[in-house]
Amino acid sequence: MNTIDLETLANRVRGELFAGQDDIPTRAAISGAAPLQDAEAGHITLIDNEKHLPRLQSCKASACVTPQSYPQVPIPQIVVANPHEAFAVICKLFRPIVVHAKTGIDPRACVSALAQVASSAVVEALASVGDHCTVGERTQIHRGVTVMDGCTIGADCQIYPGVVLYPGTILEDRVVLHANCVLGSHGFGYRVENGRHVSAAQLGWVHVESDVEIGASTVIDRGTYGATRIGEGTKIDNLVQIAHNCKLGKHNLVCAQVGIAGSCSTGDYVVLAGQVGLRDHIHIGDRSVVLAQSGVSDSIPEDQMYFGTPAVPRKEQAMILASLYKLPEMRKTVKQLERQIEKLGADQEHDESQQRKAG
Amino acid sequence: MNTIDLETLANRVRGELFAGQDDIPTRAAISGAAPLQDAEAGHITLIDNEKHLPRLQSCKASACVTPQSYPQVPIPQIVVANPHEAFAVICKLFRPIVVHAKTGIDPRACVSALAQVASSAVVEALASVGDHCTVGERTQIHRGVTVMDGCTIGADCQIYPGVVLYPGTILEDRVVLHANCVLGSHGFGYRVENGRHVSAAQLGWVHVESDVEIGASTVIDRGTYGATRIGEGTKIDNLVQIAHNCKLGKHNLVCAQVGIAGSCSTGDYVVLAGQVGLRDHIHIGDRSVVLAQSGVSDSIPEDQMYFGTPAVPRKEQAMILASLYKLPEMRKTVKQLERQIEKLGADQEHDESQQRKAG
Amino acid sequence: MNTIDLETLANRVRGELFAGQDDIPTRAAISGAAPLQDAEAGHITLIDNEKHLPRLQSCKASACVTPQSYPQVPIPQIVVANPHEAFAVICKLFRPIVVHAKTGIDPRACVSALAQVASSAVVEALASVGDHCTVGERTQIHRGVTVMDGCTIGADCQIYPGVVLYPGTILEDRVVLHANCVLGSHGFGYRVENGRHVSAAQLGWVHVESDVEIGASTVIDRGTYGATRIGEGTKIDNLVQIAHNCKLGKHNLVCAQVGIAGSCSTGDYVVLAGQVGLRDHIHIGDRSVVLAQSGVSDSIPEDQMYFGTPAVPRKEQAMILASLYKLPEMRKTVKQLERQIEKLGADQEHDESQQRKAG
Repeated sequence: MNTIDLETLANRVRGELFAGQDDIPTRAAISGAAPLQDAEAGHITLIDNEKHLPRLQSCKASACVTPQSYPQVPIPQIVVANPHEAFAVICKLFRPIVVHAKTGIDPRACVSALAQVASSAVVEALASVGDHCTVGERTQIHRGVTVMDGCTIGADCQIYPGVVLYPGTILEDRVVLHANCVLGSHGFGYRVENGRHVSAAQLGWVHVESDVEIGASTVIDRGTYGATRIGEGTKIDNLVQIAHNCKLGKHNLVCAQVGIAGSCSTGDYVVLAGQVGLRDHIHIGDRSVVLAQSGVSDSIPEDQMYFGTPAVPRKEQAMILASLYKLPEMRKTVKQLERQIEKLGADQEHDESQQRKAG
Repeated sequence: MNTIDLETLANRVRGELFAGQDDIPTRAAISGAAPLQDAEAGHITLIDNEKHLPRLQSCKASACVTPQSYPQVPIPQIVVANPHEAFAVICKLFRPIVVHAKTGIDPRACVSALAQVASSAVVEALASVGDHCTVGERTQIHRGVTVMDGCTIGADCQIYPGVVLYPGTILEDRVVLHANCVLGSHGFGYRVENGRHVSAAQLGWVHVESDVEIGASTVIDRGTYGATRIGEGTKIDNLVQIAHNCKLGKHNLVCAQVGIAGSCSTGDYVVLAGQVGLRDHIHIGDRSVVLAQSGVSDSIPEDQMYFGTPAVPRKEQAMILASLYKLPEMRKTVKQLERQIEKLGADQEHDESQQRKAG
Repeated sequence: MNTIDLETLANRVRGELFAGQDDIPTRAAISGAAPLQDAEAGHITLIDNEKHLPRLQSCKASACVTPQSYPQVPIPQIVVANPHEAFAVICKLFRPIVVHAKTGIDPRACVSALAQVASSAVVEALASVGDHCTVGERTQIHRGVTVMDGCTIGADCQIYPGVVLYPGTILEDRVVLHANCVLGSHGFGYRVENGRHVSAAQLGWVHVESDVEIGASTVIDRGTYGATRIGEGTKIDNLVQIAHNCKLGKHNLVCAQVGIAGSCSTGDYVVLAGQVGLRDHIHIGDRSVVLAQSGVSDSIPEDQMYFGTPAVPRKEQAMILASLYKLPEMRKTVKQLERQIEKLGADQEHDESQQRKAG
């Protein structure tokens, strides 16, 4: 096993090295890097949150990386301005990422003679690229990818194994598509004719702008006549459904298992948390956030935070939930009030009849 | 760029051509077809809803297709009985869909010598068909499809890239399977033996009747001993989970991300909206509709519309929601009533004691 | 069609054969095995629940398998201690499962010269295994599987078509991965720099312990610096999302479409029902159960059953729901109480003024 001494590690991340309570030699050999819950003796670990400091007691790590503001710890400590950046550098020193130097089209790939693949692009074995496709410079098409006819793929894209691009899909530059995601499948729109569902037109396509990342097994349907479009810089997690004709804005975050029905649109910097559902034909305004599992049935203006099914502003929902969780108690109160009022009414009647007698 | 003049377009869709407010020549050249939000100058667009007419103000389109009942618009207008059908025809004139003339088995496909593939069927490169499979006339098996042993596939089916059919899967005619869907995976049924989960029998299969369409990345598990069955004409959207032993009726619509637990059944013309969940062993009656995100824990009779978790008839749920969204206010009212009653009780007691004194 | 007589079937499952009400000859030929709803004349069926006995009236089956405690039925009956085990044996007699005798690497597979594949392992056509991978004894890598560089796969694993393992994935022994599932995709973690989302480090991997089964199209993201880990014997259904850095315990059951956000952990024997969502950084204690569609926003201790969004103990939620479904009625009651109290107050005031007069 390769080891690297602490002083070398500290230098590589431009950090300051402290010896720890037991004055451990700063040339101690470190054999690996691992997060707190996995670190073994000989490893260096990361503490990115001061509340995790007590966990060092039960952790076998031999050294740690921390931000500058933390107190001294019992083990040697490399103090840096950006601990995540530093720890990533250290991890890579122990587990170097091998970059394939190979370029070009693998002889076991199926690339149409009518496709144009840039000379610096990679098409791996068992991938296929259809007629009239173009693939930009340095783009990597991994094994088992299927690019159907007439797709346009920009430069510096990463298309992971098992991805399927239906005909006419457009990817701009630096798009990352994770394994088994599907772009351009048919929209779920039908009309009834003689008691049978007949599919709407499927004449559109999917257009993904630059710097978009799309998660594993996510599905984006093609537009009816035009584009289903994902705006620049937007990041989409795994197992997300985006239906036909949707237009997502720029720099959105769409978390796992979100479902967006047909013809929805979003502004820029919108966040949809996990398992959220949007009904069709609504708009989510710039910078608005929809919290997890919410079901949104109406458009949401800019700069809002919504929650619940049907979704309402978060503060409103918090009051509803607070009341809801006291509902059984309130029900008892109401029953008691009923009895009290009945009694009060009876007493009053009694009093009145007494009064009448008295009067 | 090819252009087509408006008169030609109108003739091709048997529409009536109106010149628009500015008497634009009806022989004006049109260069493309696009939906309202995407249309550029030179394009023809579609207006399928009268409320979208004002959007023509900000749209650069040079012409539009509308139904017969609409008022005149500022740009040339092709008026037709069925605007979607007409616009689809026009889109195809500008972006013709190329149909591959090729049939037969690509030499880079892996087809078992023990499989029977109809002569008019297509098996593309990098697809595989296992032992004892049959593939019907004109069926197209796209790239990267895996058909495992003993599958029976009818005529005129479309099986998109990345689809996996487990052994023994049966598809009738005109079945469409979108990319990366999986049919026949193992049911999620276990019994505990010595503290370990042991899988139930996986001896069944999946049977898909004619004219069924199944969305991308949808998964349908095999039956325990017999078939998990999808009825004729039923359409299933993307990322849907259908568990072992389910029996879906005819002409259902199952929207994206629905989850149906084991041994459920549905009647005909059932609609399950997005992200709905059904618990195991329940039945949804003919023509019933379950609204989005609902969780259904009991069988539903025919002709119902259900909503919520646990799902109840929509009208009932609407009343519950209306009350729920007024709950914080109601809680205040109840607290106020408590105080008032306390006071009334105290006053009454006081009155009574006064009376007693007076009496 | 092959037939097998009843006496032979009874002997094969060591069951006791009863002749049925009409004294049907025990040597009657049986032509197939099917569940109750599918069984045709000539078939043997299974009754595993006494409440299903009346369904025999409308079922055409010629014989059935039942547990020992049931009453006699009109058709011949094979009585056994474990009816599911017996029926599985009988199904396999009629539909034998053909096991491929083939081992080794198919010439149409793409296996790196730098990979080590055990001699008894199978790598099918169109599968690929990357550099520095190891594949254990008797493991089967089906068609269309992509194993990226540096993966370690144990013995007796089944990896179904379309599965994608990202670099560095570790599978212990007897792991079953169903079609199109993805292990090791990038975690959904971003920080904002100059208004753009920049991905967190993706330096970890996925580690799957022995005897784990993972459903079709399920996705498990790699850890940031270390492992996302699935504990021994845990079973995961289809279309499940497990985010980066999660640690699942042993013998969990995770049902379809569950979503688990980043850095969650579970104890042993945890059950998450269908469509449940867990927020990030929470822990579910040993043997706790979360019911379907619940959204869990805080850690749950051991031996609990939780339900709802946000999830609370099931009994508490049951009381809330009971109150909720009576909420519209309660709202009426409260309005009525308001009126009554107003009246009581008015009457009392009136009485008081009367009294004052009287006094």
